[in-house]
Amino acid sequence: MISEKMLRLAQNNSVIRAMFEEGNALAERFGRENVFDFSLGNPNFPAPPSLDGAVRAVLDDTLSTDVHGYMSNAGFLPVRRAVSENLNARFGSGYEPAGIIMSVGAAGALNVVLKTLLNPGDEILAFAPYFVEYGNYVANYDGVLKVVPPNPPSFLPDEKAFAALISDKTKAVIINTPNNPTGVIYGEKTLTAIADVLTQKQKEYGHPIYLISDEPYRELVYDGAAQPFSANFYENTLVCYSWSKSLSLPGERIGYIAVRPGAEDYALLLDAMSIATRVMGFVNAPALMQLAVARVLSEEPAISGYAENRKLLFEGLTALGYECVRPDGAFYLWVQAPGSDDKAFVAAAKKYNILFVPGTSFACPGYVRIAYCVSRDMIERSLTAFAALASDLGLRKA
Amino acid sequence: MISEKMLRLAQNNSVIRAMFEEGNALAERFGRENVFDFSLGNPNFPAPPSLDGAVRAVLDDTLSTDVHGYMSNAGFLPVRRAVSENLNARFGSGYEPAGIIMSVGAAGALNVVLKTLLNPGDEILAFAPYFVEYGNYVANYDGVLKVVPPNPPSFLPDEKAFAALISDKTKAVIINTPNNPTGVIYGEKTLTAIADVLTQKQKEYGHPIYLISDEPYRELVYDGAAQPFSANFYENTLVCYSWSKSLSLPGERIGYIAVRPGAEDYALLLDAMSIATRVMGFVNAPALMQLAVARVLSEEPAISGYAENRKLLFEGLTALGYECVRPDGAFYLWVQAPGSDDKAFVAAAKKYNILFVPGTSFACPGYVRIAYCVSRDMIERSLTAFAALASDLGLRKA
Repeated sequence: MISEKMLRLAQNNSVIRAMFEEGNALAERFGRENVFDFSLGNPNFPAPPSLDGAVRAVLDDTLSTDVHGYMSNAGFLPVRRAVSENLNARFGSGYEPAGIIMSVGAAGALNVVLKTLLNPGDEILAFAPYFVEYGNYVANYDGVLKVVPPNPPSFLPDEKAFAALISDKTKAVIINTPNNPTGVIYGEKTLTAIADVLTQKQKEYGHPIYLISDEPYRELVYDGAAQPFSANFYENTLVCYSWSKSLSLPGERIGYIAVRPGAEDYALLLDAMSIATRVMGFVNAPALMQLAVARVLSEEPAISGYAENRKLLFEGLTALGYECVRPDGAFYLWVQAPGSDDKAFVAAAKKYNILFVPGTSFACPGYVRIAYCVSRDMIERSLTAFAALASDLGLRKA
Repeated sequence: MISEKMLRLAQNNSVIRAMFEEGNALAERFGRENVFDFSLGNPNFPAPPSLDGAVRAVLDDTLSTDVHGYMSNAGFLPVRRAVSENLNARFGSGYEPAGIIMSVGAAGALNVVLKTLLNPGDEILAFAPYFVEYGNYVANYDGVLKVVPPNPPSFLPDEKAFAALISDKTKAVIINTPNNPTGVIYGEKTLTAIADVLTQKQKEYGHPIYLISDEPYRELVYDGAAQPFSANFYENTLVCYSWSKSLSLPGERIGYIAVRPGAEDYALLLDAMSIATRVMGFVNAPALMQLAVARVLSEEPAISGYAENRKLLFEGLTALGYECVRPDGAFYLWVQAPGSDDKAFVAAAKKYNILFVPGTSFACPGYVRIAYCVSRDMIERSLTAFAALASDLGLRKA
């Protein structure tokens, strides 16, 4: 009696989430220390102490009804002001407080944006490999996800393939940089090229094509790499941000949508997004957490810890003969599957209680995603298991 | 370029939310003390100090990654266990922890339930007057909301009209008791009658018809009235609860769905609801707030304050000649519009900076909803304005 859409989803549940549950089951069976679960982007590093301090301070210095009560669906105005000023100071952007819609994480933000934009049959483009949930989000509003094929070995967008997929039905293009699952950063050149294609196509079709920039990993960059601010390259950019990764708050569901004042249909977009937030049942981003993050906007992520993990895992696996894409950002290692069979690779690893996600789940078979937002200790212990796996798979350095 | 659905919504935005924004604007213009805003169900009483204490205690005694990290989409298992045990202890129900899905408030819960159940064209029944958002929630999944006409003066369901509206396409019926906007409580007799109709219709059509019980006001009852537990009357009940009203936490978006073990398609329903929570972008109910409410499940709402407000407003308005339904629960007064013109009544009141919501917004013209979850002081000051309004409207007691 459940809906047909949901029945299909229940029958093909998220591989990543299924692994999360499986990892917990294995840990109960074999002991947490004997399971190497690299499946989920659940930050291992704690939220900064300043965040918990901000939660306490809000409770101390603000009236209970002002902390926990309703506010405008778009969020507390002082919070939206603080976010816009922080972005403007860091990136030289020109956001207004009204241009910020507080959201239930980036997943909530993306759903609000897609609900706002999509008529049934409208098209959204994404670049493979991409976060598997994009497909579900687009399907929620009966849109069609068009996938630009993967472009190894750089995994940067193939501009020609991208331009060729845009049609009159294209409402928006989703990018995600630093990228989940590849760890690749779209630099100035790439963002400029994307903007150029979109600007030309907007002209050609006579209507806006929005750039949805899903950027929860924005601050997670290594070795002095920098993530240019996507919205500075293209006026019709809708930034979807979350503090899930940067402040290790994935369970709190707190993020925002940022819309540039020059974006087409600016006022209508904001109005509709605020209404979408309400009618979809979010109502508003969690109140206490809005007020808390607004007090720690200059806080930085636990980069040094992730950088150590990245080095340890990348060098360890490379030495064992695995072919890895060197990640410039995010906290994922993108590894070629021996024999290009990612599902077989995942199955072989599971024998050693190593869990990671097949590239097929990101529309990019032949690779796997290994999330290194885990304890350094687990990575160290896992290397013995990875070595045994490498031996099984016949990987040997020359 | 925004979606046609959203464009229509933007053009017909929620009267209630528009009033909330208007109330704020009036307050800025005339001073907060000169505006009598009865438009929104935003509790005036603070959250219990124990709740803020629980937030602090969670931060003190739980690892940051365990507080703020991802958990299963359905919520923390110990929280779900605590909720199920609390319900079972209070109502003699037999919930399992797995039968509780933590949600982003009742609005999130209702959307997850409707997403899970509805194919396009499927029907949901609601009893007028009903919370206006039900229509939007059902439309999100291309369902059709069928409205059982209002049944004054009791405003209890008209069983015959109800039974007549059920068809083979009926997936579920939504009830809301204590009721927003009338304050009416569905007692044992009413809940039994609803269950009888549904049981018979399930048999007739050969498929389950779920009872969605939206009950954020469950504990808000007055003068010794009691709200029987809806799910005890009918096996296929899906309870949608929120702590928004009972603990004054509407901004925090924290609630749950409870499904009885005997409900048809129990395991599949739960699985699909968990997936719906994820793909709709909620991902999970806010983590810290899940852990906090689980520690204060025996906390009681600020009933005595609301009871005082209710008495003051009901007696004050009745003495001025207004015709009010005496509310047994929730925190709304349902008042007949003089001349049965609710919109004119709202407009006339606005001249005195009194804001309340026309019954038309609840599919029940001829009445208005006055929310008394406000300060006692505001109610007292408003009575002079209500008196002047009564005089304008020619209301005089015999």
